[in-house]
Amino acid sequence: MIPVKKYSKNDGDSYALGATVCIELLKNRPASVRGVFFHSELVQSDARDLVEKLCRESGIPVEINDKVFRILSQKENCYMIAVFEKTTDPVSAERPHIVLVQPSNAGNLGTIIRTAAGFNVPDLILIRPAADIFDPKVVRASMGAVFLICHRYFDSFESYAEAFPYKVFYPFMLDGSTDIRDTVFDKNFALIFGNEATGLPTEFATIGHPVRISHTASIDSLNLPVAAGIGLYEAFGQIRKQSL
Amino acid sequence: MIPVKKYSKNDGDSYALGATVCIELLKNRPASVRGVFFHSELVQSDARDLVEKLCRESGIPVEINDKVFRILSQKENCYMIAVFEKTTDPVSAERPHIVLVQPSNAGNLGTIIRTAAGFNVPDLILIRPAADIFDPKVVRASMGAVFLICHRYFDSFESYAEAFPYKVFYPFMLDGSTDIRDTVFDKNFALIFGNEATGLPTEFATIGHPVRISHTASIDSLNLPVAAGIGLYEAFGQIRKQSL
Repeated sequence: MIPVKKYSKNDGDSYALGATVCIELLKNRPASVRGVFFHSELVQSDARDLVEKLCRESGIPVEINDKVFRILSQKENCYMIAVFEKTTDPVSAERPHIVLVQPSNAGNLGTIIRTAAGFNVPDLILIRPAADIFDPKVVRASMGAVFLICHRYFDSFESYAEAFPYKVFYPFMLDGSTDIRDTVFDKNFALIFGNEATGLPTEFATIGHPVRISHTASIDSLNLPVAAGIGLYEAFGQIRKQSL
Repeated sequence: MIPVKKYSKNDGDSYALGATVCIELLKNRPASVRGVFFHSELVQSDARDLVEKLCRESGIPVEINDKVFRILSQKENCYMIAVFEKTTDPVSAERPHIVLVQPSNAGNLGTIIRTAAGFNVPDLILIRPAADIFDPKVVRASMGAVFLICHRYFDSFESYAEAFPYKVFYPFMLDGSTDIRDTVFDKNFALIFGNEATGLPTEFATIGHPVRISHTASIDSLNLPVAAGIGLYEAFGQIRKQSL
């Protein structure tokens, strides 16, 4: 049915690999799904039943086709693949943002998306050069949370800041002027994190309210998804408390 | 000089790949280092100077040998490899612990070690079956923090609990009875985290003080290193505050 080839970031379609990710896609963005492939060795299960039901409801074709798995999934333990059109809803100006400046690792990007969805920050800004959010590795690492969020790419932080002038910026930096525990997050916050290897450029020290996550001197820095997780956890906790 | 072969968990030696990890090893466990290999394309740099100085001080041999890189490092961008003996100091009964029950992913284990070192919990317990802490992938993901911590494997949680009867247990569970924000951590804490896919078995609900990290219903769970990072961050913050 649908032609399938190795994923490229310039394609209009991408792939959701595995049952968990397929189910999130079918539940949250059924209109973008072009079809679902089952491997001939896929056994009967609740997950399979659910996928078949969701596909029936939305008129999405299902096909058994092992060749597709040889092209797309290689070594992974994967018996279900959905083909979907790469779409996103517009990022909201009213809700808080998480901003990733030049994130390079697909697994990290997926993990951060999952955490952001879990802490109620479903609007993601990516400053180029940045990993491709629809790369099947990102989709998989997000456990399908990529289908719960909106995102938008910008060529520079400046163009983002111009587009959203009312955001309150919190750049996370090793030498941020305020410890996160002493930071009060505005409910219109944008949490900003730098690249895995280099962090944020020094000029972010003069933007908004720079934040540091204090740790012992025995390590140079925290892992990026861990730092983003702590930032999201703190901001989520504060906003939830304010709204009680 | 030193014979080198593809790493196996049954070997007595393992490998530190890349400059960052080699430097942490040489600074923190010089006595365990058997030798360092440089790739012939390794350029002069502060990192190279530092490694040469540390090796000279400890009488560690350095050799230029490209074959070693073909055996051990494959596709990675790696110009320096140290061979080290797999040793650890004993886990302390006085300091807090982090306990990982059946962790399976090498990258996750390394990331958690890095975070634990950063939040002053340098004693790690691993309940089997568990990833191999000296796997070069773990060493690399830890950014060398594996050389800052002590660890010990146990065959069951029960045997760990018998060996350390005065620890106060905090199992992290999706339905933990107390939100982490309402949890007061004893300074003799042991934070307990389950396997990536399955979490902790339900019997942990009756052990110590079960903790949950509240998040929205849109995701099933947080990623393991993110959850461990938030747990370590909270416990570290509380203990630091108590000691002021």
